[in-house]
Amino acid sequence: MTAFGRSAEARLSTAEIIAVGTELLTPFRSDTNSLFLTARLNELGIVVRRKSIVGDDATDLGPAVREALDRVDLLVVCGGLGPTDDDLTRETVADVLSRPLTEDPSIVEHLRARFAARGWTMPENNRRQAAVPEGALVLDNPRGTAPGLWLEVGDRVVVLLPGPPRELEPMFAALARERLSTRAAPERLYRQVLRVAGRGESHVEEMVQPVYERWRRAEPPVRTTVLASPGSVELHLSTRAVSQDAALDALDAATDELVAVLGNHVVSTDGRSLPEVVGELLHKDGFRVAIGESCTGGLVTAQLVDIPGSSRYVETGVVAYSNEIKRTVLGVDPELLNRHGAVSEAVAVAMAEGARRVGATDIGIGVTGVAGPDGGSDEKPVGTVCVGVVGPGRAQEARTSMFPGDRAMVRRLATQTALDLLRRVLLRHMRERATVRGD
Amino acid sequence: MTAFGRSAEARLSTAEIIAVGTELLTPFRSDTNSLFLTARLNELGIVVRRKSIVGDDATDLGPAVREALDRVDLLVVCGGLGPTDDDLTRETVADVLSRPLTEDPSIVEHLRARFAARGWTMPENNRRQAAVPEGALVLDNPRGTAPGLWLEVGDRVVVLLPGPPRELEPMFAALARERLSTRAAPERLYRQVLRVAGRGESHVEEMVQPVYERWRRAEPPVRTTVLASPGSVELHLSTRAVSQDAALDALDAATDELVAVLGNHVVSTDGRSLPEVVGELLHKDGFRVAIGESCTGGLVTAQLVDIPGSSRYVETGVVAYSNEIKRTVLGVDPELLNRHGAVSEAVAVAMAEGARRVGATDIGIGVTGVAGPDGGSDEKPVGTVCVGVVGPGRAQEARTSMFPGDRAMVRRLATQTALDLLRRVLLRHMRERATVRGD
Repeated sequence: MTAFGRSAEARLSTAEIIAVGTELLTPFRSDTNSLFLTARLNELGIVVRRKSIVGDDATDLGPAVREALDRVDLLVVCGGLGPTDDDLTRETVADVLSRPLTEDPSIVEHLRARFAARGWTMPENNRRQAAVPEGALVLDNPRGTAPGLWLEVGDRVVVLLPGPPRELEPMFAALARERLSTRAAPERLYRQVLRVAGRGESHVEEMVQPVYERWRRAEPPVRTTVLASPGSVELHLSTRAVSQDAALDALDAATDELVAVLGNHVVSTDGRSLPEVVGELLHKDGFRVAIGESCTGGLVTAQLVDIPGSSRYVETGVVAYSNEIKRTVLGVDPELLNRHGAVSEAVAVAMAEGARRVGATDIGIGVTGVAGPDGGSDEKPVGTVCVGVVGPGRAQEARTSMFPGDRAMVRRLATQTALDLLRRVLLRHMRERATVRGD
Repeated sequence: MTAFGRSAEARLSTAEIIAVGTELLTPFRSDTNSLFLTARLNELGIVVRRKSIVGDDATDLGPAVREALDRVDLLVVCGGLGPTDDDLTRETVADVLSRPLTEDPSIVEHLRARFAARGWTMPENNRRQAAVPEGALVLDNPRGTAPGLWLEVGDRVVVLLPGPPRELEPMFAALARERLSTRAAPERLYRQVLRVAGRGESHVEEMVQPVYERWRRAEPPVRTTVLASPGSVELHLSTRAVSQDAALDALDAATDELVAVLGNHVVSTDGRSLPEVVGELLHKDGFRVAIGESCTGGLVTAQLVDIPGSSRYVETGVVAYSNEIKRTVLGVDPELLNRHGAVSEAVAVAMAEGARRVGATDIGIGVTGVAGPDGGSDEKPVGTVCVGVVGPGRAQEARTSMFPGDRAMVRRLATQTALDLLRRVLLRHMRERATVRGD
């Protein structure tokens, strides 16, 4: 079917990925390797045309490999290189390409040594992993027993990689750096990610559309994709160019224009997450923070603490679900609770003040709301959330939002909003200080 | 290539799923519909043989559809049914099957009414969604504009579904109930999930292997898959049978034997998660809980609060990262901190006692540890975590663990361990009370 013999060393520009494993055809597991592989391939300017998942079955895998080689320059097959009878990738690919398998004694030696280092004897089964198809190059696997394989098929390339991500990722990263980069087209893909908070997807789209329409027609053209997830919008900018300078200049200029349009809705232009950005702002100013949470039940604190080094700026967090705890631990005035209700800006601010007092910190955050499914009223329906930030100094901010979705979604959106309000307070503080100082 | 003409109404037993969308071939998005579809198809005894992802390109989609029809009885194509020029699924499939497209006036009417209900005029583009291939059955989409399509091709079936999960899922659930169940083989797949905590994957495998080996050879045979994720192991039991009674009897009997072997390591036999199970145990006894957390930074509280109705049994959570807060808020004796260090069972228990006092609850939980990447010592390396539970009454339990992995992994494992220790304390309390009462 295929003419397997064009001139060698042709450029690789299209790829296909096949993940092998019957467990990947159940409702419980999905292939994630292909996302990593796609990112690395795209960086080299190689486009992924198709991804497939087949079970541990030679009658399914064989035709899948044959068909893929008819379509693309580079085929990456992941998984099925283990030592058990289920692992059929090596044998099936060798068969499709009519390449006899020979045992490589140096691999057997390496495997034996690997087992011996742990005081074990190599099971005979593992010898299968030393079988190498004729003409294949062996790719070292420092993290496991399955070596990878690189096969040239005329001007096409087939790469076999082990399935576990911790083995596949370093192996493929090395391959991309060394062999693939010389075989890919001279154009490379460059990307930049802007994270945006405080504005919904369609609003962001409307704001940035005139900018990205213009950049789409620039040279080199910059493509923009708007990706939304609950509480956050990302702008993915990409450009393809031979010259790295030209690409990065275009991305920088487009980013500057987008930042000018979006203002302080931009959380970061280098992919940093909201908790990372907030953490860096806190740390830069030497501020410490304390959190009082009701409906978010610890999520705001957990997100901040998730960042390594956060003990430098997170002092404490108190989950105060009941009015009792709001009073006893956070010192919220019962009068305030009666007058405004537990879900109110006044109580959110009082919780923030209480947290700040408990932690003796510069800044306090308070979150109170109705996450559902019960507890809503006509006046304060499920999804109503109030956030308050007090400090640094006498600064004080509060915000009420109405979030859609279920309990998990409301809590997630409330957490994002609290962190974003803190970010804005910290930015304003920096600006004001700069003005006073005349920086 | 294909003989499209076997006798009609043949049983459907194998399926293939094609997801259409160029965004699914980037590093940022993965197809999740296929997991939902596989679960529903498996319930009907239909096995998924391959999954593919192709871009919005007729030259890629056309051959993918043609090849799939050579291999399986049922082809499900998701996505590409929208109104834009990128959406090519309808046209491409009609072309492959040589079925001319005709506009269905009732769909146009329905779309117009849908737009009118929101005060909008239907864009002309949306007319494309009313194009129906000859002989196709139209599947209603109550949640969007793209109708689904069901096409019989000889004894095979092609189903086209919209890409958004909230549109696809109810549509396919109805289809599975109504049309597919009569076309599937009379055998059905039945599943049961056991969640296990407190034992690693290989340990669980060793314990249950004799049981599942025996059940694999029973009639009907029960298959067991061991799936591990950090801190939790799941046993997925499945059996295929014509008779529901026979299937459920076999699953129940196998489950009973597994529970006998695993004892109180079994968290649930009906898929309930650890926080759900703990929540139900707390609620049943009318106990309220308070949590003092250091390295987990609010995750234990957040997981408990994640369950609807948790305000009935979660009173408060305090994140006490610094020794200062451990002293001032949780009342941990500075002498204890000096003598044992912040990461010690004594301090974990004192934090649990402090949380219980702050919340005036029946039960307190304390977690302290070194999540990393910094802060480890020779004596207490990164990954050392101490968990304490005090109450109900005078009960007191503590446990020290050494967890592998990075910061996020250590915190996740510590959270699981704290919840599991609480679960065991509650179970023991129930047993002891039953013994006293002579239940």
